[in-house]
Amino acid sequence: MHDLAVSSELQAAVRSAAFLCADAAAEATLPHFRTAGLVADNKLDGDYDPVTVADRNAEIAIRQVLAEHRPDDAIIGEELDDQTGTSGVVWVIDPIDGTRGFVSGTPTWGTLIAAGTKDGPQFGIIDQPYIKDRFVGGFGEAWCDGPMGRVPLRTRAPRDLSQATVFTTFPEVGTTKEQAAFHTVADQAQLVRYGMDCYAYALLAGGHIDLVIEAGLNSYDIQAPIAVVQAAGGIVTDWSGEAAHHGGRAIAAANAEIHAQALAILKDCMNG
Amino acid sequence: MHDLAVSSELQAAVRSAAFLCADAAAEATLPHFRTAGLVADNKLDGDYDPVTVADRNAEIAIRQVLAEHRPDDAIIGEELDDQTGTSGVVWVIDPIDGTRGFVSGTPTWGTLIAAGTKDGPQFGIIDQPYIKDRFVGGFGEAWCDGPMGRVPLRTRAPRDLSQATVFTTFPEVGTTKEQAAFHTVADQAQLVRYGMDCYAYALLAGGHIDLVIEAGLNSYDIQAPIAVVQAAGGIVTDWSGEAAHHGGRAIAAANAEIHAQALAILKDCMNG
Repeated sequence: MHDLAVSSELQAAVRSAAFLCADAAAEATLPHFRTAGLVADNKLDGDYDPVTVADRNAEIAIRQVLAEHRPDDAIIGEELDDQTGTSGVVWVIDPIDGTRGFVSGTPTWGTLIAAGTKDGPQFGIIDQPYIKDRFVGGFGEAWCDGPMGRVPLRTRAPRDLSQATVFTTFPEVGTTKEQAAFHTVADQAQLVRYGMDCYAYALLAGGHIDLVIEAGLNSYDIQAPIAVVQAAGGIVTDWSGEAAHHGGRAIAAANAEIHAQALAILKDCMNG
Repeated sequence: MHDLAVSSELQAAVRSAAFLCADAAAEATLPHFRTAGLVADNKLDGDYDPVTVADRNAEIAIRQVLAEHRPDDAIIGEELDDQTGTSGVVWVIDPIDGTRGFVSGTPTWGTLIAAGTKDGPQFGIIDQPYIKDRFVGGFGEAWCDGPMGRVPLRTRAPRDLSQATVFTTFPEVGTTKEQAAFHTVADQAQLVRYGMDCYAYALLAGGHIDLVIEAGLNSYDIQAPIAVVQAAGGIVTDWSGEAAHHGGRAIAAANAEIHAQALAILKDCMNG
């Protein structure tokens, strides 16, 4: 297995392919965004999880880029079967994170592209193509190209939870126990906001908020956010303080202090 | 008092001034958006209602435009004292609707500009300057200028509440009784989303969602949304079915059918 950290040539190739993936996904998603009559299938019976033509087309487009530029890499994606590789490089992709937001017209869904090894992501992109916000982190850099130009990404300095802003996608969070644990943290925060999907991790990386806490994640939901947040100086773990790149419960924090403060509460609630 | 509907000359002057107001507000807000160290004052003791330099500067900038171009009109704004007028035209403005979103870096706050009479708005703009999404409605037109060009705004065709998407800014909504009434509607909907501030009304006007239900509003929170939503074919009332432009409780609906269905539930809960 390659360690991507030691080969600048490999890093450059991965970075370049990642940007092409995000560009290809944008071309596939945007023609379907805010299109009247967009039909959402229900993937799971009894649960509202819309998958659009855009979602599938974007994953196909991303895989075509990787087939051309990184044919020996492994791929894990939301929509299509996993692909094994021989290079040691693993791509973990979600063409549209926040499909509910996408079908509602909100501009805070994103295309998630992560590259790393089986031990986790080392480079990630959170791309919001309608706004043209592209949050990038890994291989020693962290920045956002947006409507107002390029800005560096750096997470917030420590502040107490009572002064902190916490985001999660929806108030139900996960199981009843997970929901209770989340709200125990949230009740101690200054501000709690919902509905931003992956964009919340981008705001954390940008230094605008302090915590993102979620549960019930898949690896493709969290790997790109991990790379971007960590590159910007933040910390992402599961609710036990272990690696979060396999999905499940995640806490992304601006710094070690707020991470420790919130994690202690989550642990206490989950063990209580 | 002028009826703005009968004078195309007056309409053109108001429309033109409204665009200048939105442009001036954007110049005042954007330099402070996502600025590290942005300090939020607390307007209300014990309640988190940040007011930023951007908010005040934007209202001053809007009032300077109106002083130059519409000196005889009345102005009601969030940040500064009401101004009386002699023309019969009333401007109702909120330089930054969604200040909590603004300080969190979310791109779904907006500048709200409404023009009408004391009987309510006739023209409105919901402007999101970071994205460069400008939603405009009134005087016989309804459109959005956005990153992908100009698109017409038209609300959704009727569908049952069980198939509908409902937005509100935060799950607590208002009083305990208002919260319970909102969630009685929301529990019957297919999808409930939070956190979009005024942008939710823009999504309703654009035909992407079915209902926005809020409480505890001020007139400057709702007048521009009323104008935009109505121009796009929707309906906005209070929870009794009466005019909503004075603020308080509002239900904005894509069409008469979903409005009637949700309103009946709200009335029932509030009277129960």
